Amino acid sequence: MTGKVYLVGSGPGDPELLTVKARRLIDEADVVLHDKLPGPEILSSIPAEKREDVGKRAGGEWTPQEYTNKRLVELAEEGKTVVRLKGGDPFVFGRGGEEAEHLAENEIPFEYVPGVTSAIAGAGVAGIPVTHREHTSSVSFVTGHEDPTKEESAIDWAALAETGGTLVVLMGVGKLPLYTDELLAAGMDPETPVALVERATWPDQRVAVGTLETIVDVRDDADIEPPAITVIGGVAATRERVLAFLENEPDSGENTQ
Amino acid sequence: MTGKVYLVGSGPGDPELLTVKARRLIDEADVVLHDKLPGPEILSSIPAEKREDVGKRAGGEWTPQEYTNKRLVELAEEGKTVVRLKGGDPFVFGRGGEEAEHLAENEIPFEYVPGVTSAIAGAGVAGIPVTHREHTSSVSFVTGHEDPTKEESAIDWAALAETGGTLVVLMGVGKLPLYTDELLAAGMDPETPVALVERATWPDQRVAVGTLETIVDVRDDADIEPPAITVIGGVAATRERVLAFLENEPDSGENTQ
Repeated sequence: MTGKVYLVGSGPGDPELLTVKARRLIDEADVVLHDKLPGPEILSSIPAEKREDVGKRAGGEWTPQEYTNKRLVELAEEGKTVVRLKGGDPFVFGRGGEEAEHLAENEIPFEYVPGVTSAIAGAGVAGIPVTHREHTSSVSFVTGHEDPTKEESAIDWAALAETGGTLVVLMGVGKLPLYTDELLAAGMDPETPVALVERATWPDQRVAVGTLETIVDVRDDADIEPPAITVIGGVAATRERVLAFLENEPDSGENTQ
Repeated sequence: MTGKVYLVGSGPGDPELLTVKARRLIDEADVVLHDKLPGPEILSSIPAEKREDVGKRAGGEWTPQEYTNKRLVELAEEGKTVVRLKGGDPFVFGRGGEEAEHLAENEIPFEYVPGVTSAIAGAGVAGIPVTHREHTSSVSFVTGHEDPTKEESAIDWAALAETGGTLVVLMGVGKLPLYTDELLAAGMDPETPVALVERATWPDQRVAVGTLETIVDVRDDADIEPPAITVIGGVAATRERVLAFLENEPDSGENTQ
C-alpha cells in the first residue's frame, strides 16, 4: 500500500497560527520532513523521532531539492503518511509546485494543505494591512531570492512599481539595496513608506520602518537579518496610526521605529 | 474595563483551515461579528446566540461599514471580547485596515489574527501553485470588486500583465470579460492558462479551466458564480499535470475541465 504525502504550510511561526488541519496531520504523521523556516516553536512541538530535517545537512550544505523529492517518494512507497512541512504556504516561493509535480509523476497520492503566508501575516502583525481601500487595489509578492541558476533577474521591478499596488518582498534582506534602487529608478516616490518585519510572529519579532530612500540605512542600523519581509507602499504608514492600540507585538520584541 | 476586538481571518471556508488561534478565539469570544464569506460550515460551528451577522440586513441591503465600525466600538466599550470574523485574511480586500484604524481612533485595543487567504489556497486546492520557480517570480492579487465610489478603475491591468507574474483576481466573476479584454489588449498571450475556482474548500467547490481567450465562455457554460477566484498564468497548467494524484478535490465537487 502506497502512503500519502501532505504538502503542509506551517504559517509564519507562531504555533497557534498552524491551521487545525496542519496540527492534526503533524500529530498523526509517521514522518515530518521540514527545513528551518517553520521556526523553533513549531519544530520543538514535533516529537524528535518523527522529524527529518531536509533543510541543511551536516557540514552546512543545503539539501538539494532532488534529495527531498526522492525521499518523499521513498517514504510514501514504504506506506508512510508523510507531512512535508514548509514555512508559510507551500505554494508561495516554497518549491511546493515542483514537489507536487514530482509526486504526481511518481504516482504518489498527495494533498495540499494551505498555510498562513508570512507575506500577509508578517505585514499585518506589524499593523500593516497589505491592501487598503483608500491606498491600493492590488498587492504583489516577489521573491528576493531567485533561482541562482537564472542568468538574469526575471523580476520586472519597473512593471511592479507601475502597478501602484503594495509590494511585499520575501527573503529580500540581502538584495534590499538592489531592488530599492530599481524601484527609485522606475520613478517610485522616494518617500514611499517601507517596513521590514524580521521573524514575524516569532517570540523575537522585530520591526523597522523607513522610506524607499532610507530603508537600507535603517536595515543596517537595526541590523535586520533574514528571515524577514519587506513591505513597500502607502499602507506601511498605517502602522503609525494604529500602533498604540495594536496588541500583536510580542512584549520581548524590539521595535526600531 | 474596555474589552478587546480580534480581527480574525476564517480562511477559505473549510473549518479545518481555521488557525488554532482563530478556533480558540471564536470559542472564547462573547460575540462573533461576521458576514457570509466564512461559509456555512464555519458559521454553523458557532453557537447562534453569540453570532451577529453584519453582512446583510433584512430587506437584502448591505450593512454599511460605518455600522460595523460603530458596533465593534460599542461592544468593546461594554467590556466584551469580540471576534470580527472575515473570510480569508482580514487584511486582503476585507476592509480590515479600515476597522483597525477606526478601533485605534476610538482607543480600543485590538489584535490581528491572520487567516489562510483564498487567493493562494483556492488556487492550490485546484492543483495550482501561485508561484513556481520555472514559471514566475511574482504573484499579484487584485480585487475585481473595487470601491464603487471610485470614478475610474485604479487597477492598471497593463502594468499587471507586464510583470509577467501570476495574477489572482478575487471577487472577479462578474467583471471577467472586462479584465480579460484589458489583459489581451495589453499584449498578454491569448493562450495563457486561466482557472476559475468557485467556493474553494467548501463541500461544493468547483473548478473550470480555459485560456485567456476562452475563459468567459467557459464561465458561462459552467455557470460559475461568486464567490470565486480567477487564476491567470502559466502555473494554471500545473493542474493538468497533477490532477490524477491530487486528493484535495471534494468527492461531491464538479470539475468542468
